Amino acid sequence: MTEPFRVGLLGHGTVGSAFAALLSERSQAIATATSRRPEVSGVLTRSKGDFAEILSGADAVVELIGGIEPAREYAVRTLEAGKALVTANKQLLSQHGDELLAAARASGAQLRYEAAVAGVVPVVRVMRESFAGAHIEKVHGIVNGTTNYILTEMARTGATYEDALGHAQQLGYAEADPTEDVNGKDAAAKMAILARLAFHASVGLVDVPFEGIEAITPDDIDYAKEFGLVLKLLGVAERLDGGVTVRVFPCFIYGGHPLASVVGPFNAVTLESPAITEVTLSGPGAGGPQTASAVLGDVVSVMSSQGMDLDPIEELRFIPGDEVESAFYLHLEVADQPGVLAQIARVLGDNQVSVKSVVQKGMGDNARLVMVVHPVAEGRFNAAVREISKLALMRSAPRSIRVIEEEFTS
Amino acid sequence: MTEPFRVGLLGHGTVGSAFAALLSERSQAIATATSRRPEVSGVLTRSKGDFAEILSGADAVVELIGGIEPAREYAVRTLEAGKALVTANKQLLSQHGDELLAAARASGAQLRYEAAVAGVVPVVRVMRESFAGAHIEKVHGIVNGTTNYILTEMARTGATYEDALGHAQQLGYAEADPTEDVNGKDAAAKMAILARLAFHASVGLVDVPFEGIEAITPDDIDYAKEFGLVLKLLGVAERLDGGVTVRVFPCFIYGGHPLASVVGPFNAVTLESPAITEVTLSGPGAGGPQTASAVLGDVVSVMSSQGMDLDPIEELRFIPGDEVESAFYLHLEVADQPGVLAQIARVLGDNQVSVKSVVQKGMGDNARLVMVVHPVAEGRFNAAVREISKLALMRSAPRSIRVIEEEFTS
Repeated sequence: MTEPFRVGLLGHGTVGSAFAALLSERSQAIATATSRRPEVSGVLTRSKGDFAEILSGADAVVELIGGIEPAREYAVRTLEAGKALVTANKQLLSQHGDELLAAARASGAQLRYEAAVAGVVPVVRVMRESFAGAHIEKVHGIVNGTTNYILTEMARTGATYEDALGHAQQLGYAEADPTEDVNGKDAAAKMAILARLAFHASVGLVDVPFEGIEAITPDDIDYAKEFGLVLKLLGVAERLDGGVTVRVFPCFIYGGHPLASVVGPFNAVTLESPAITEVTLSGPGAGGPQTASAVLGDVVSVMSSQGMDLDPIEELRFIPGDEVESAFYLHLEVADQPGVLAQIARVLGDNQVSVKSVVQKGMGDNARLVMVVHPVAEGRFNAAVREISKLALMRSAPRSIRVIEEEFTS
Repeated sequence: MTEPFRVGLLGHGTVGSAFAALLSERSQAIATATSRRPEVSGVLTRSKGDFAEILSGADAVVELIGGIEPAREYAVRTLEAGKALVTANKQLLSQHGDELLAAARASGAQLRYEAAVAGVVPVVRVMRESFAGAHIEKVHGIVNGTTNYILTEMARTGATYEDALGHAQQLGYAEADPTEDVNGKDAAAKMAILARLAFHASVGLVDVPFEGIEAITPDDIDYAKEFGLVLKLLGVAERLDGGVTVRVFPCFIYGGHPLASVVGPFNAVTLESPAITEVTLSGPGAGGPQTASAVLGDVVSVMSSQGMDLDPIEELRFIPGDEVESAFYLHLEVADQPGVLAQIARVLGDNQVSVKSVVQKGMGDNARLVMVVHPVAEGRFNAAVREISKLALMRSAPRSIRVIEEEFTS
């Protein structure tokens, strides 16, 4: 006789109903493996169900409501009751992570959240379990499928940002209100969660500066092709001398970079550590069935194990953005007259910005200068760009985008 | 006061000593997370140590001896004693998996073996835990770093197989005796382990036909470039109508395929399931520190959880290779005379082999025909090739290599 494992389900939208269906479909296999049969013991929707009743009748609670309240309250009450919580809620985890983890530690309850980051790509489990023995130096990748789809379309078809976004909305890869996807906030929440796991320290959304892709033009993508560059919205969490940096920004990478081949709505995360060199996980970023599968994986883990979260063991110093070094692509439209390049080169040199490669093209009375500069403290680069923008020879505002320099030739 | 967790270590070669060093380096962090402090309580080498004594003083045993005996005996005795076994031994698992799993189930002991497949790439954990809720249809990928390095070098430099192998040996990517790497047997053992996990069924090395890369020539790689094809040694385990197939063979894939960018000594495994679409994991295939990290991850899992293995729940039918459908690249050297293409096309057509693309080039009195044919039952294709090889117009033996047809345009 197999004992039941009772799951209280909060939320019954796309993901919630996909989860309930998948649970029922796979319950026999799970019962064989764990000797307990999972079943949905109660469902809370906007119009039906009582949380206290669902909690008291459940062995674990699955939170798929989204947003902060009442999800936060239900999550905390679940953990305080000593019951496992499985959630896909990245806003909640990135803004109230300390509170949730403290509640879980106090009661010994499990907190699992694979579906909150990178959809079905099991990066949370791999960081918590497989690489618990490794010292992770860097986590970076593509953690927002909507923007990766848009950038892939712009590069493939030459579409404008607006057209590519519209196409993504038609296909269901972007929501009706895509703000938090395209401005980088969604990716920043996910990077806060990953940075917490990587660094065993308190990291929240507030610690993660983010930039989006709304201002990217087809021209940026086109010109960069001359340098063999591909544009991605990257999240980067990295230990550097003297601290850490966690950021989200649009960025060029070389065509041979493993992330360059991650296209469409896919996500990919690379973990770097001396012990493992680097490991990359990739797959579809989200979608109802995929998220439901990640949630079910967490439920099975709750049924069969103790789970594990390291206490925050270090105080982090977040390095100010101005001190972080980056390479940059710089795009200038200038008057086509003698001495222009010299003037710009002088400003860059005065700010210790060193040019790696440059392409100059005439366009009637104007010329276009597209260059890539070597890594330099971002504060210095920005100061140089501010100075350049004031030069009389400038014909439009300078445009700059970060570049990841590593080339992979293996 | 943190209780110790005593690890008995069998084998103290490259991986064993790297594991002992890593365990000591990370013991504080692990103690914080699990409330137990791992320590090596005994070491068995060829010349020192007594297994019975090590077993009785250990909470878990890490087997890094390799080979079948005495590794098999020690593994079984560990599990029979109800103690957890962590191993990196793919030969043992692929040839005695049923015995080990039965011993583990009988005593309730954990059996973990992440390091046996794809080095540090955590595919075993992901299959056992993250996707325990998914029905996996197909597992395929590059699971041998030595051969991937050799094929990458041949493609990059035009080197012969022998020269690329020598280079791999110099760099430590190939062993002094590379037989089981280059003939596909190492990859076959790993695919047996992955297929067992994917299908929840008994699969052993004996169920996995394998072909290696010893006979690949630079010409094969060169001509295939005209079709945009890249050569990889692939392992494929797949559910098909009426059964499953698990095989290892050299194979062309299109340049846009995600596995095409997996170069050098890296491994990559793609899991496909309706619930997850597809997820790919990639990273360095092996190496002492990487394998040690995977072993340590398993030890931490043993310390913090129950582990889980599904009983074999289905009887598999292994589909005979002749019935499996594949696309092929076919390379023929023929007399350059009228009607040659017609003769060959007739033989192909008689065997229901349909040509997708063909390139013909003169070379003095002879001509070279390079073609790609559509998927067809392998028995039919091989029959056609046997017939062709008997034609008077043939100038050398036909050469054929499988092609994976999927193109990924996102």
